[in-house]
Amino acid sequence: MDWQAEIEAARTRIAGHVVETPVLTVKGFGLSYPVEMKLEQVQHTGSFKARGAFNTLLSSQVPEGGVVAASGGNHGAAVAYAAASLGIPAHIFVPEMAGAAKIALIRSTGADLTVVPGEYANALEAARAHEAASGAMQVHAYDAPGTVAGQGTCAAEWEAQGLLADTVLIAVGGGGLIAGALGWLAGARKVVAVEPETSCALHAALGAGAPVDVEVSGIAANALGARRIGQICFDLAQAHLGASVLVPDAAIRTAQEALWRERRQLVEPAGATALAALMCGAYRPEPGERVAVLVCGANVVPDPLG
Amino acid sequence: MDWQAEIEAARTRIAGHVVETPVLTVKGFGLSYPVEMKLEQVQHTGSFKARGAFNTLLSSQVPEGGVVAASGGNHGAAVAYAAASLGIPAHIFVPEMAGAAKIALIRSTGADLTVVPGEYANALEAARAHEAASGAMQVHAYDAPGTVAGQGTCAAEWEAQGLLADTVLIAVGGGGLIAGALGWLAGARKVVAVEPETSCALHAALGAGAPVDVEVSGIAANALGARRIGQICFDLAQAHLGASVLVPDAAIRTAQEALWRERRQLVEPAGATALAALMCGAYRPEPGERVAVLVCGANVVPDPLG
Repeated sequence: MDWQAEIEAARTRIAGHVVETPVLTVKGFGLSYPVEMKLEQVQHTGSFKARGAFNTLLSSQVPEGGVVAASGGNHGAAVAYAAASLGIPAHIFVPEMAGAAKIALIRSTGADLTVVPGEYANALEAARAHEAASGAMQVHAYDAPGTVAGQGTCAAEWEAQGLLADTVLIAVGGGGLIAGALGWLAGARKVVAVEPETSCALHAALGAGAPVDVEVSGIAANALGARRIGQICFDLAQAHLGASVLVPDAAIRTAQEALWRERRQLVEPAGATALAALMCGAYRPEPGERVAVLVCGANVVPDPLG
Repeated sequence: MDWQAEIEAARTRIAGHVVETPVLTVKGFGLSYPVEMKLEQVQHTGSFKARGAFNTLLSSQVPEGGVVAASGGNHGAAVAYAAASLGIPAHIFVPEMAGAAKIALIRSTGADLTVVPGEYANALEAARAHEAASGAMQVHAYDAPGTVAGQGTCAAEWEAQGLLADTVLIAVGGGGLIAGALGWLAGARKVVAVEPETSCALHAALGAGAPVDVEVSGIAANALGARRIGQICFDLAQAHLGASVLVPDAAIRTAQEALWRERRQLVEPAGATALAALMCGAYRPEPGERVAVLVCGANVVPDPLG
C-alpha cells in the first residue's frame, strides 16, 4: 500500500473535521536536552483517535445500520463523536476497564453503548457479534487501513508544522498511531515505539517474529492494552521501526506528574508513556540527537471536574 | 515610554528563559465562529507571570538581599521560579486566599514564603514592609515597567506565531498582561478587557475616570482580585482599549468546564475568563470579525494529582 498517498488523501478528507493540534519545544523533565511535543490530546474527544474515525467514516459507504466499534474507551469516544457529527448511528462496545470517565464521554455523544465485562478483546468479540447480527459497519480501533491512514495524518501534520526531530517517540497499544507515523515517515526519521512493560504487544511480536497474544494489565491498560498487535503495524514496524522500548508503570506515573507540574498538561497514563521513555532512560538519545514526543491522550480517571 | 521597543528588548532578554507557548485555532464552545487561542498556562509555573519576572530580574541590578514580591499566587510563583533559576534569593508574600496549590508551588522553588491573612492588598503591604526593612528589591505584580514589558512579550510572540485575529480578549486583574498587549499592539488590533463582575478594577476605573478601589471576591479572586488597577494599565487602556466587559462567575465556571471537556485544558478560573466573555455573550463579535482568546493560567485548586 502507498501509505503516503493514503495519508495525504486522509489529510484532505478530514481537514475541517479535526483539530490541528498545537506543538511546542521545551526544556525540562529533568532532561539535559530540549524535547519537541505535539499535544494531540487537544484533539476532539481527547485523543488522536478522532483522525482515524473521521477518515474511516468519510471514506466508506456506511450502511443504514450505521457503525459499530469496540474500544478501550478512546476509539469508541472518537467513533461516537465522528458518527454524531456526520449524522450516522453508532453502537460502541467498551470493556468495564475503560473506566467511568471514558464511558460517560461516549454516552455524552448520544451513541448506543454496551459495557462488556473484561478487557478490550472481550469488547471486540461483542462488537463483532453485533456487526454480524445488525449489518452495521465495524470501525476497527487500529488494524484497518482507513484507521491507520487517519492516524498517520498526525505525523504528516506535525511535519507541516515544522517538526525538527531526528527521532519521534510514540506510545503503542494496538499500533494504529505508530503504524500511521511509520507509513508516513517511512524511515525518514527514527521512530521509537514505547510500551508499558505491562502491555507490550508490539515488543512481544517483534521478539516472536509474528503477532502473538500477550497478557495486559497496568495503569495504561485501558488505552494501550491490546492483547495482540495489529498486522498492519507489525509489518510497518518490521520495515521501518527504529527501536522498541519498554517502561515500567512507575515511570509512566512520574512522566504524567511531570507533564502536569511542569507544563499544566493533565494527561492519561498512555499520554505520558512516550515521555516516560526519555525520563527513565529506556531511550537515551545520542549527543545532538533531536527528539520529539507525541502526547496522545488525556481521558483521565477520575475526571478532574467531577 | 516606547513600549514596543521595551517589549522587543524584553523578548530578546528573556528568550531561553521562558517557553514559547503553543497556539491553536478551534471551533467549538457553542460558538458559530472559530477562536484562536494561545495556551500561555503552559509557561513556567503555570501562568504568563514568568515573562515579567524574568524580564525584571534580568534588567535590574538585584541587591544582595535579593527580591521580594507580593502575589495572589501566580506572580509569586513566577518570581520565586525566576529567582531560583538565576541564583537570586527571594521572599514571597501571599494572601491566604492564594490557596494550598499555589502556596505549595511557591514553596517548591525554595523561596522564603510568608502567608498573610486577607487579600492581595494585605500581602502587598507586608511585602513593602519587608522591602523597607531588608533592602530587597520589590518586583511588582503588574504596575511596573519591567513587569509590563515582560508580559507584553506574550502578545509579541503570538503575532510572530501568525496571529490572525482582529480582536484579542484578555482577562484583567491588576492589568499587567493586558497593559503589555496594549503597549505592543497600540491599536493595531482591538483588545477587549474581560473582568469578573466580582473583581473589576479596570472597569471601575474607566467608569470613574481614574483608578479607584474596588471590593474583590468570587472564583477568580486569587488571580484577578486586584483592589485597584495599575496606573500603567489605566493609561494604556485609555489610549488603546477596544472594550471593557464583565462576566459573571457562573460564566467563568462554564468556560472552565468547556476548556476541559472540549480541549482537555484544565485551567484556573482566571484562565477561562476571557473565553467566558465569548461563551456568555458579554462580547459578541461582528460577522466576519476574527477573535482570539489568551488562556493565561492553570494553577487550579485542588491540585488534580493531589
